Amino acid sequence: MADYVKVALDGMGGDNAPFEIIKGAVEAVNESSKVKVFITGIEDTINEELSKYTYNKEQIEVVPTTEIIETAEPPVMAIRKKKDSSLVKALTMVKDGECDAYVSAGSTGATLVGGQVVVGRIKGVERAPLAPLIPTIEGVSLLIDCGANVDARPSHLLQFAKMGSVYMESIMGVKNPRVGIVNIGAEEEKGNALVKETFPLLKNCPDINFIGSVEARDIPYGMADVIVCEAFTGNVVLKMYEGVGGALISEVKKGMMKSLKTKIGALLVKGALKETLKRFQTEEYGGAPMLGLNGLVVKTHGSSKAKEIKNSILQCISFKEQNINQKIKEKLALDEA
Amino acid sequence: MADYVKVALDGMGGDNAPFEIIKGAVEAVNESSKVKVFITGIEDTINEELSKYTYNKEQIEVVPTTEIIETAEPPVMAIRKKKDSSLVKALTMVKDGECDAYVSAGSTGATLVGGQVVVGRIKGVERAPLAPLIPTIEGVSLLIDCGANVDARPSHLLQFAKMGSVYMESIMGVKNPRVGIVNIGAEEEKGNALVKETFPLLKNCPDINFIGSVEARDIPYGMADVIVCEAFTGNVVLKMYEGVGGALISEVKKGMMKSLKTKIGALLVKGALKETLKRFQTEEYGGAPMLGLNGLVVKTHGSSKAKEIKNSILQCISFKEQNINQKIKEKLALDEA
Repeated sequence: MADYVKVALDGMGGDNAPFEIIKGAVEAVNESSKVKVFITGIEDTINEELSKYTYNKEQIEVVPTTEIIETAEPPVMAIRKKKDSSLVKALTMVKDGECDAYVSAGSTGATLVGGQVVVGRIKGVERAPLAPLIPTIEGVSLLIDCGANVDARPSHLLQFAKMGSVYMESIMGVKNPRVGIVNIGAEEEKGNALVKETFPLLKNCPDINFIGSVEARDIPYGMADVIVCEAFTGNVVLKMYEGVGGALISEVKKGMMKSLKTKIGALLVKGALKETLKRFQTEEYGGAPMLGLNGLVVKTHGSSKAKEIKNSILQCISFKEQNINQKIKEKLALDEA
Repeated sequence: MADYVKVALDGMGGDNAPFEIIKGAVEAVNESSKVKVFITGIEDTINEELSKYTYNKEQIEVVPTTEIIETAEPPVMAIRKKKDSSLVKALTMVKDGECDAYVSAGSTGATLVGGQVVVGRIKGVERAPLAPLIPTIEGVSLLIDCGANVDARPSHLLQFAKMGSVYMESIMGVKNPRVGIVNIGAEEEKGNALVKETFPLLKNCPDINFIGSVEARDIPYGMADVIVCEAFTGNVVLKMYEGVGGALISEVKKGMMKSLKTKIGALLVKGALKETLKRFQTEEYGGAPMLGLNGLVVKTHGSSKAKEIKNSILQCISFKEQNINQKIKEKLALDEA
């Protein structure tokens, strides 16, 4: 058992908990013999779900908890008060070294706060960013930070750039990943105060492959592998993906229902269209890691189904095997030397 | 002639100058007898273009200038040095009261700087925002500010909300326009420092119809008529429209070329698709007004064709007829009373 990558899974978090969460856990252990999942949550409920499936019993263990954190609860209070919740228990198992990683589809706020407060940051890491993969026409890019630290400082963004580079290189296999900073123009003198201060730090950093400013317009075209920004901006980028994509698609569908001719056409292109759109949905790329913590914390979408839970659990294996945290420590320390 | 709405048009600005610019001017005067266009630029070039068209000669006048501001020029320097450029001359005509409005497809930076420095702000207006109309599945919303003032203060955003409300009500005919502030969550306690400080100002303002936070995801669905944000955020919102829309469409097209079946389908839906996509392009909605100046300054896309130039010129008629600047003065003064 010592050889397993141990994942603490919040069994009660997310819109589709516990059904899809448990299903995802089962699918993960059935796909990989390297992982053991500790599911936190109401014991009877989880066991009842688990009883529906066939899997290697050694790879899943239920960790009973009695409380549940709701999505709308104020995160700081929830973390502090609900010690016996599925979410806090899972985080605590990572903190105590009983697990290597945490996966939850529950409250984003509570995960972000709990990641910092319960699991804690690697010494020297100033802020821990949330870094989802976003689709581009070339593949995927890492958006860092997308919601963990609003009003970040230049030194934080520099660390994000380094941690993001480690992730893209080690987990996604992108050699010498291109780092860009989100800006309102391509020229170096453009930007707000934060970007203007951060730009020279990135430019003069020998440990990353900085390519300069990236306008939001160019993000979906895959202009950079690591998209550095402050969390407010990152959140807007991520949400605009969802919003523009969703609205456009609903309009396209409406447009195709206008006449018999377009309806027939729609039938013929339906499959291809669906496939394309799927590729452009941010939900397709599994959970977003929170980097720079003493252990891996992965936040999956609130609407996660089994597939995303499974992918998020399997993602933890690479993270452990690639020894990402050691690499992050080295990358950040390089500078201090 | 005293009755004309007088528009100073930068004849040399934009990717398609002077051809499409002149064509747009001619189309505008041929469509409306209320407007007179003063085209600034190299006299011979402009006259040569004009000679190709039939129009009421009284409605177009050429104002000779010798210099041209290029898109890439540092704006402040360009405004200061090139007094005899088509762009500065057009702005000066508004400043001197010879024209009511300015329209240019040239350098955004020079227009923004020139708007503030040459034309000048209405007394009491702290910052003049650039406010384009953006498409939604319900119609259009006004995005204010989208690039003029990065690192704005809460009091600026409050004025933007008021000016935007006047514009949407008077020009777009939206009764009691809903004002929302771009935020990273719907709850009042969410946001960065700027949003948290601005929120109560908007909430307690009796002169606007404030509906609270709007997540970026909801913007394309038409959640609010006036979308208030700081310019960096506004620029990201606008550019993500272009980026996600463009990338998605190119992927959809690629997907439809995959097989004979999808190719036939594509032929059948092509027209409907094109129409839908056109509705979702930000270029379709004419120029973006810069509000709060002593005269109207309209910035159209660098890639503007005649149609956008024509629409931007005609837009100036409503602006004058509706007496927007007087209404803005009243709206802002209301608070000081």
